[in-house]
Amino acid sequence: MSKSVPRTPTLEDVARVAGVSRATVSRVINGIRNVDADIQETVREAIRTTGYTPNQAARSLVTRRAGTIALVMSGAGVEGDEFAKAAFADPFFGRVAGGVVAYVRTQGVHPVLMLAETTTARLEVLDFLRRGNADGALLVSTHPEDPLPGMLTEHNLPAVLFARPVRPLPISYVDLAHQDGGSLAADHLVARGCQRVVTICGPLDVPAAQDRLAGFRTSLENHGYPYLPIAEGDFTQQSGETAMQRLLLDHPDLDGVFAANDLMAHGAVLVLQKAGRRVPDDVAVVGFDDSPPALASRPRLTTVRQPVEEMAAEMARLLLARIEDPDQPPRQVVFNPTLIVRDSA
Amino acid sequence: MSKSVPRTPTLEDVARVAGVSRATVSRVINGIRNVDADIQETVREAIRTTGYTPNQAARSLVTRRAGTIALVMSGAGVEGDEFAKAAFADPFFGRVAGGVVAYVRTQGVHPVLMLAETTTARLEVLDFLRRGNADGALLVSTHPEDPLPGMLTEHNLPAVLFARPVRPLPISYVDLAHQDGGSLAADHLVARGCQRVVTICGPLDVPAAQDRLAGFRTSLENHGYPYLPIAEGDFTQQSGETAMQRLLLDHPDLDGVFAANDLMAHGAVLVLQKAGRRVPDDVAVVGFDDSPPALASRPRLTTVRQPVEEMAAEMARLLLARIEDPDQPPRQVVFNPTLIVRDSA
Repeated sequence: MSKSVPRTPTLEDVARVAGVSRATVSRVINGIRNVDADIQETVREAIRTTGYTPNQAARSLVTRRAGTIALVMSGAGVEGDEFAKAAFADPFFGRVAGGVVAYVRTQGVHPVLMLAETTTARLEVLDFLRRGNADGALLVSTHPEDPLPGMLTEHNLPAVLFARPVRPLPISYVDLAHQDGGSLAADHLVARGCQRVVTICGPLDVPAAQDRLAGFRTSLENHGYPYLPIAEGDFTQQSGETAMQRLLLDHPDLDGVFAANDLMAHGAVLVLQKAGRRVPDDVAVVGFDDSPPALASRPRLTTVRQPVEEMAAEMARLLLARIEDPDQPPRQVVFNPTLIVRDSA
Repeated sequence: MSKSVPRTPTLEDVARVAGVSRATVSRVINGIRNVDADIQETVREAIRTTGYTPNQAARSLVTRRAGTIALVMSGAGVEGDEFAKAAFADPFFGRVAGGVVAYVRTQGVHPVLMLAETTTARLEVLDFLRRGNADGALLVSTHPEDPLPGMLTEHNLPAVLFARPVRPLPISYVDLAHQDGGSLAADHLVARGCQRVVTICGPLDVPAAQDRLAGFRTSLENHGYPYLPIAEGDFTQQSGETAMQRLLLDHPDLDGVFAANDLMAHGAVLVLQKAGRRVPDDVAVVGFDDSPPALASRPRLTTVRQPVEEMAAEMARLLLARIEDPDQPPRQVVFNPTLIVRDSA
């Protein structure tokens, strides 16, 4: 404690200064209704005068609220330190964290970072919520077979997912109209006059990757392009490079590429340039996400924007509403993608 | 609750199953010593059997520990949503978060994400800690004049900084031997035979940027290079591009560049390539950090590695030790940089 605060002020100090009972101070602090507005103001003034800070643990016992939510990066496969480092190194995580914090801080709520890539870690998240350490969970899954969403609904714990689950669950989520995003990319390449278009799709066990591909393919078909060469990547830059090499070998006359995220699009651009193709003059490239690599790439990537920060803020909003009113049915909010035209296509 | 847990088990249930008093169960849950080992095991078994999860708020009242620490991104200048998004979009934040979580999860502790870029936000961090919502704070400052470290020491709150503060403070921190890092870059460029070396330094009000420059310059002087052209950047890719354009204009015969971080080095490479210079054949480029852009750049960047994940884990270790023993004096741990040779130099 600083010298200016020689003794920690107590509830009794506040009661004495305000001239009310301890119980009344307690009711004001814990936001219990039916306290006269004038008395509330007197108590609040006494709290300011004394410098009293209510103990959160004591307050939580009354309100049954932690004032925190869990922000869970969940997955399967990689474990431990490797998972921790990989999960947070992805620029996508930073965008989610930024969107969540920007919203919840305005509500006096704070996110607790958690990882859930093993059974033990998943049970720890469940226990954390059941013990009341957090009032609900925001869940970003890196793996489609993640069992955590099902565990959360089974225990009726407030939770919101980023992206719809592989199997239907009574759970809230935010998502993007990925098919529409694929269509936007196709329409743009066709409008540029590309004739021999290929695509680097994402992992086909991920719903978002399937949807981006389906939207792209359907739109091309509607434009009269019957055949679409496809190579599958895993959303890393390296996989984009490998896929582009293969496509270039099999289809040396290609003139348009749609990659299902910006990292793979960046990898494709590097391979094309190394092979002597000018982007966009010889080959036009469209990415997906509008993440930092889209701006770092040269030429800057034309890409389908996923408004991750806004989606993350909406996740948080849905969760806080559900915590406020536990009887709310699960809600789904689907955002629209937009095409950001820069220099690569 | 799921169907298999029709009623939430209570402390009484555990006491009944274990055949001990409520007080004994409470003592075991709260880790209070002087409980017979056999009785402890019996109580733990009863907790497992009943499925009881102790209420964290009730437990905190006894242990006076929140079991959480604040992970604070602190700054000045930009405010609100813009700060939230910028702070978390930096790949550096992801590396810090990964290192912190990888360590604290092994200790049953969870980080709470907070921002502190305004006076109000800084006071909120103070209150959060004083209320016992978190047991201490890890602080990553984006601005050298950040007043938060001083506020934390004034209130004697456990805290550890990433990087030493501009003004001496009785506070723990982890840091890198930045001067040695600058030396490593200079020695490497000299050993390659570079004759006309320039540098893009970081903002000179940031101690780390000063130190990297000082180490680089001193080492070059020791090798007999009397004159070093300098352009200042602000650690963004764009500033690296601008600085490189200016240096190239003033010193068209340059053959070696040291940029004080990888993002600026990447910007420098793009400008050099656009001007028809081959990297590293015509101009060798060394970066700093070994962050994701070092691998995304083509050629891949030779760079001075800052082991951010390990430094972040050490920050967390220092903080938990201080929380455990509040009488510990502040500690400083300085890590050594290493040169990672890839393709750009």
